[in-house]
Amino acid sequence: MNWIDYLGLLGVVTGSLTFVPQVYKAWISKSVGDLSIWTVLILISNVAIWLVYGILKDDFAMELANSIILTLALVMLYFKLTFKK
Amino acid sequence: MNWIDYLGLLGVVTGSLTFVPQVYKAWISKSVGDLSIWTVLILISNVAIWLVYGILKDDFAMELANSIILTLALVMLYFKLTFKK
Repeated sequence: MNWIDYLGLLGVVTGSLTFVPQVYKAWISKSVGDLSIWTVLILISNVAIWLVYGILKDDFAMELANSIILTLALVMLYFKLTFKK
Repeated sequence: MNWIDYLGLLGVVTGSLTFVPQVYKAWISKSVGDLSIWTVLILISNVAIWLVYGILKDDFAMELANSIILTLALVMLYFKLTFKK
């Protein structure tokens, strides 16, 4: 691996972590009124596309990162649909 | 371009659009209390990494998509720091 590959790996790691604090905050506060459901829905479509792309390209880093983000995005959608505020 | 490339293009387009509804909602409501500042900060780091990666790999689609997402993420950070709720 050269240093550009390490930069990509850092992108995969930070990408996987991005929505962890948002899911945690929503879970603790039970408040999701300021979150846009359209952003959550487009995010789900987007990471589903990159997950399929990663599978087709046989790229494990893309498969792993997008599986994690897809899971977190689906949790946010669940919170958005269940929490009342 | 084969159809896998078109799928990647669709990923770039949906990725660029993802945070548009969130920025619009925050702008209209002036309410960002439910947004995690950590998610916004990690998102900024993440897209900055992918932008540099795209520049180093000379990948125009990555450059364009990540420039758009970085701009939207910086607007979200500005809202988060200025709106009082």
